[in-house]
Formats: sequence, C-alpha cells, structure tokens
Amino acid sequence: MDESVLEHPLITFTSDFGLREEWVGVVKGVIYSINPRAKVIDITHEIPPMDIGKGAFVLAAALPHMPVGVHLAVVDPGVGTDRGALVLEAERGDLLVGPDNGLLLPAVRRLGGIRRCFFIENPAFFRQPVHPTFHGRDIFGPVAAHLTLGFPLEKLGRFGDVNGLTEPPWGPAKRGEGAVYAQVVDVDRFGTLRLNAQPDDLSALGVRRGDELLIMVAEETFRAPYLRTFGEVERGKPLVFDDSSGFLGVALNGADLASRLGAKPGDAVIIYVPAAR
Amino acid sequence: MDESVLEHPLITFTSDFGLREEWVGVVKGVIYSINPRAKVIDITHEIPPMDIGKGAFVLAAALPHMPVGVHLAVVDPGVGTDRGALVLEAERGDLLVGPDNGLLLPAVRRLGGIRRCFFIENPAFFRQPVHPTFHGRDIFGPVAAHLTLGFPLEKLGRFGDVNGLTEPPWGPAKRGEGAVYAQVVDVDRFGTLRLNAQPDDLSALGVRRGDELLIMVAEETFRAPYLRTFGEVERGKPLVFDDSSGFLGVALNGADLASRLGAKPGDAVIIYVPAAR
Amino acid sequence: MDESVLEHPLITFTSDFGLREEWVGVVKGVIYSINPRAKVIDITHEIPPMDIGKGAFVLAAALPHMPVGVHLAVVDPGVGTDRGALVLEAERGDLLVGPDNGLLLPAVRRLGGIRRCFFIENPAFFRQPVHPTFHGRDIFGPVAAHLTLGFPLEKLGRFGDVNGLTEPPWGPAKRGEGAVYAQVVDVDRFGTLRLNAQPDDLSALGVRRGDELLIMVAEETFRAPYLRTFGEVERGKPLVFDDSSGFLGVALNGADLASRLGAKPGDAVIIYVPAAR
Repeated sequence: MDESVLEHPLITFTSDFGLREEWVGVVKGVIYSINPRAKVIDITHEIPPMDIGKGAFVLAAALPHMPVGVHLAVVDPGVGTDRGALVLEAERGDLLVGPDNGLLLPAVRRLGGIRRCFFIENPAFFRQPVHPTFHGRDIFGPVAAHLTLGFPLEKLGRFGDVNGLTEPPWGPAKRGEGAVYAQVVDVDRFGTLRLNAQPDDLSALGVRRGDELLIMVAEETFRAPYLRTFGEVERGKPLVFDDSSGFLGVALNGADLASRLGAKPGDAVIIYVPAAR
Repeated sequence: MDESVLEHPLITFTSDFGLREEWVGVVKGVIYSINPRAKVIDITHEIPPMDIGKGAFVLAAALPHMPVGVHLAVVDPGVGTDRGALVLEAERGDLLVGPDNGLLLPAVRRLGGIRRCFFIENPAFFRQPVHPTFHGRDIFGPVAAHLTLGFPLEKLGRFGDVNGLTEPPWGPAKRGEGAVYAQVVDVDRFGTLRLNAQPDDLSALGVRRGDELLIMVAEETFRAPYLRTFGEVERGKPLVFDDSSGFLGVALNGADLASRLGAKPGDAVIIYVPAAR
Repeated sequence: MDESVLEHPLITFTSDFGLREEWVGVVKGVIYSINPRAKVIDITHEIPPMDIGKGAFVLAAALPHMPVGVHLAVVDPGVGTDRGALVLEAERGDLLVGPDNGLLLPAVRRLGGIRRCFFIENPAFFRQPVHPTFHGRDIFGPVAAHLTLGFPLEKLGRFGDVNGLTEPPWGPAKRGEGAVYAQVVDVDRFGTLRLNAQPDDLSALGVRRGDELLIMVAEETFRAPYLRTFGEVERGKPLVFDDSSGFLGVALNGADLASRLGAKPGDAVIIYVPAAR
C-alpha cells in the first residue's frame, strides 16, 4: 500500500464474534501488539453466527465508503478445515484479509476487482501456537496487522488463482423480460429488505423514479413505487428505493416490512415492471 | 474551538443505528477519510429506532463528562424531509452536530447553553452524492470531521435563531405544591427509572436525604426514601436517588423496578412530599 | 510500567454496563480527559449485570493475549459499600484496576500472579464528586487513566495483603480419581460450554487427544471424544476440546449444546475418564 496508508494505518474489522465474549477485544489486542499505531474501525461483529451471506453484504456495503486500508473479515464456518486463507489486493489499493469462502468477493468487486490474490501460508506471520478454532486471533488478525506495517504480500504465501476462489452464497440478481429475479440478503434494524439487486437492474429495464412496480416476496404480492426516499409515500405504505448500501431496498415508510411479511434473508424477491410502460 | 482540541480531535458519536448493520462503521470511515487523526468515542448506538427522547437524555447525561469536543448525534426520523441540520456551539466550547428535532437541546443546555447556532447548508462539507436516507454518513459525519480540522462555523451555513429550534419530546419536570410532576425518560439496563426530574426539584420542595417520598407511577403507588445509594435500603426495597446521569432515579436495590411495575419511557411519575414535613 | 507502555498507553476495558446507556462512553470520555493519548480496547461490556463469575472468566481468557498495559474491569455489585478498590500489578507488568470482589484474580494469576497489590484510597486521583453508584466513571476509570501517565502505584493508596483479597465465585476444577469435577462458567454465542477446567486437568489423568470421555452435565450423560476441533466429529455430535480461552470447552459440531441441554453458568460438570484406559 502507499505511504499515506502506512502513516495512518487503518484496519476495518467485521465478524460474527458478537460482543458478549472476549473475542473481538482479543483480536484487537493481538493487532496492537504487532502495530501499536494501528487504528481499528469496527464495521459490525453482529453478523449472525456463520452467516457468510450477510457478512459479504455488509462488507460490500461498507468498504466503498472506507479509506483505503486493510480490511479484516472473519465469518468462518470452515475454521479448522482446509479452506484457504486469503489476502485480496483490490484495484483501489485495499487489502482484504479473510477466509476463502466467498465472504470477501462482493466487496472486492466494488473496489474495482482483484489486482492480486495470495493464499496466506507463511507461519512467520501467525501468532503461535495457532488455535484450531480461532484463526481470527492467530492468523487473520496478525496478518492484517503485519500488512499495516508494510510487509509485502509476496511474503505471506503463494500467489492464488482468482478464478479458483469460492463464490459467496449469493450473486447478482438476474434480469429477465420485464422482471428482476432477486433475493433478500439482509433485513436491517428498521425492517427494510436489502436485496442483491442494484439500481442498474431497474434502469436496464427502463424503470424511472416514480414508476410503479409489482413486488413478489414471501408469497405476498404488492405494488410499490420506485422512489428516492421514505417520505415520498404515506406512512405504512411500501416503496422500492436505492438503499444507502448501494443495493435496492424494499420497505414501508415508518413501519417494519420484514415483520409484516415474515420475510427473511434467502427469500426470493421478484420485481415486475408492469407491461403498461 | 481552541488549539488543544484540534491537537487531540475528539468526536463523540451517538445514534439509533444499532450495531448489526454497517452504518456506524461507515460513518467512522467517512470521518477518518476527512481527518485521519480524529478519535471517535461511541456513546451508544442502541438508542431505540427514532427515539429522540432517549437520545436527548443520553446526550444530556453523557456530554458534561466528555472532554470539550465535537459531538455527533443522529436520531433522525425526519431524514429526507426539510427538517434543519444543526451545529450548536455550546458556551463550554463544544460543537454539537445533528438534526433540528430536539435531540441536542437538553445536552447543550447542560454545557452552559447555546453560544451560536448554525444551520448546515454548505454542500462543500458534504459527501457527494448525499443519500436521502443516510445524512449521518453524507452530511452530519463529514461536517463533524471538518469541524475537528478547525473549519470556522460560518462556512457551514446560515446563522440560526436559537428561539426557533425544535424542542425535544420531554422538558423539565414540573414543580407543584408538595409534588414533582415528572415522567420516565429512560429505563436503564438495571431496571432503574430515569426521570426528567432533577435533584433541584426535590431540594426546592425542602426534601432532604433520608426523607420518605410517595411515588405514583404506572398506576402503582409506593413509599420510597430519598437516599444516596442502593445499599441504604434492604434488597428488593425501593429508593429515590440522584442518578449518575444527573437526573433523579427510582429503583429497587438489587432488583428490576421497571419490570416489576411494567413501567416504560413516557409514563407519568408523581413524587409527593408527604404533608407531615 | 516501562517506557514503551507509556509511549503507547493502552487500557483494556471490561464491564457489565451494556451498550444501551451512556456509561461506557462516559468512562472513556473521562479517561481521555486525563490522558488524550490513551487507547482504549473494549473487551466486552455485555457481562450480564453483576455477574462477577463471567467477568472473571472473560478477563482470564482475554488478558494473556493483550499487550502489557492497564486493564480496567468493572462488575461491581458492591458499589457504594465498603468493598475495596484495587490495583494489582501482575508479574508480567500489567496493572489491573477494579473492585476487590474476585473479578481480577483468575486473570492476574494467568499473567504470572500478583507482584504488588494496592488499595485505591487517594481521592486526588478521583473525579469529584464521586458518585456513589458510578465508581467506574469517578474512581476506576480516572485511576486507570492516571496509571497510563506513569503515576507510581504508591501514590494511589495503601499496600494491600494479597492473601486477604476476595476470591472469585469459581475456582479451579477439582481433580478426583478418574474424573474432573468442574462447572460451566460461561456459555458462548455458539452454545459452547466453557468450563473452569483446563487442559492440564485432563492430561493429569492421562487423557490424550482422541480418547473418549463421559460427560455429566445438567442431568444428562453422554460420551464425547477429546479432540482438537469441531470438524473432527460429525455435525451435531459432541466433543471436548481446548477452547481458545485456555479453558476446556464442551460443544456440538455445528449446533448449540447449551440450548440442547438447557445448560447454564453454574451447572456442575463431571468429566469421567472411562476405566478401560
């Protein structure tokens, strides 16, 4: 990474560790042991246990707004198996550190794609002994910390084939004839359904702000306009909008759509563009 | 702000964003992009969604104990409407940044009151494009970060009329003849009822430590002494005390009063000073 | 503490304050008021209210992985009574700050034991006035901050007798004939039972990796092998393993053992080493 990054070494940190146990603090302690000048920004540690899909979504939503830096992400159901451990260098200059299970891919694609990919294999960068269930503390955290000290990627391990990386549990939405075939990837605190679909998916179908759409989700079908923000519909009414994550959101103004529908991550969502257009 | 503040630029951060999504981390990322030397202290992000009253209480409780600095607060049900965006300069020297919905007022009054008030209007200090539902990321956070760099308030926007600001959903308790008419503003983790009443409200009625009071809350009436701390009553017994927030608290020693009574924020509380005095 | 610690002054912070109220932020504000260069690492603030046992466990699990520094811990049901306030200097060089209720002892023993013990008594290091229910803000936090500035321990108060300290609610597991008598000290987010027993307790009985054990907990008895990690048993099957905390864990691969058994902290656990060995 370039010099300015080393001057203000930043590590963002995302995990499914929760905040009740000591795990998040311990990883930070290990990081500061290696680089006392590092600054760690928590993105979230409340990814539901083992939920790679939500972890990948949150990273994709967050990283474009972060300064160029090192991004540590640990949602790792395969810890202790032979799943690979990755450092992905993004075209923007960031370094993403985490398991090879799809967690990092949607985010790195939003940072311009992968410039170089390395499999972490050099135990000189690990905390010893490596505990078989806590690679966040003993492998990923220490590697992230060493990267903020300017160690070159080549020292970490072997060069990896970008095409061989494990894909995340969700990909882009599919565009059909007059419809977008999507899924709920996240339900946020306000009950908004956050989809894998993006604003481009609607504009490709000629949808413009103010158009009415037909939404099918969780066995319910309803009409909702495509608008800029909540206040443009009456309280309790649905809308489709560009969520701040950069993905499409479906929500009610002032109410919790997910609870109303019983919708949850993984549910299929079809957005029909009425033929009338 | 004065030089020493710029040397150790501090931003406290309070919101209703919760910790499950990426929002808190993203705002910090934007802040550090603008001022990598800033230090952000989280006050809480678990204000219940849209609960301006609790947000205002927590800020009022916290800011007097904070170093002079910039205080960012986002509980903003009116995001995307034409509600104003504020920077309030406190007499103590602090700068409070947030929406004009009452959130900032109890706190700034505890910092000596408002010295100057500005409406944020200059898009040069925003992150572009401004997302209509995430002013924390695109307006309030960037403005707070720029303030730690020493930008003068005058550059942010137009001078505001202090008398025209939106009041918070709760004001001071009312003093009557031999009674204080208050309300529950917050129920804390230990089940303490935190009121809008303050110790002054009791001393104005001649109440002294050790006096017995009659409390009416949530359709229950009970006697409780006014004491310094929990251990001065038997386990399970009620007391009124000066909460660490600077407001009055009503609680049980070693038990959860709010659950016992079914009391919740917004409930009326009357504190009677028995006539016998 | 030595010079390098003062150069990068670190305070870890553990409490039962929760994240909903202003308390954690307020303590940090007070710390930064005293030493703006301090760096605070949260270990957790979600210790269940007043749960000294879990607090002691989490500290013992975390501190060995932290850089040498000041460790602030507040789980303090006796606040406002005459329980003592401690600074324990560990053989490793750390300074542990908290109430004399057993909270600090398992951790300091893992840092080599106590080199010196002081009772905090000098009000010059307190924030005044000291609130009777918030010693975290007014005593422990300020003392921790002053320690990062290099104030000598002798200034804090009187030298304490290590043998007179209050013991924590759990001690080491007991080794019997062919059995370890332990208890559940913590149930983690993944449903693992974390015990007061340690790997040494098994090796002292001649147990080796791969051996099958008989576990009795919460009125259930089941067989479980002693393994390195989850993936070595089928999904849904139990195992005993060295938890990353350094204590023994009992868990199911990919499922929540605590919920399955209805097990909770405080439950007795007996690990039998089958006679066949």
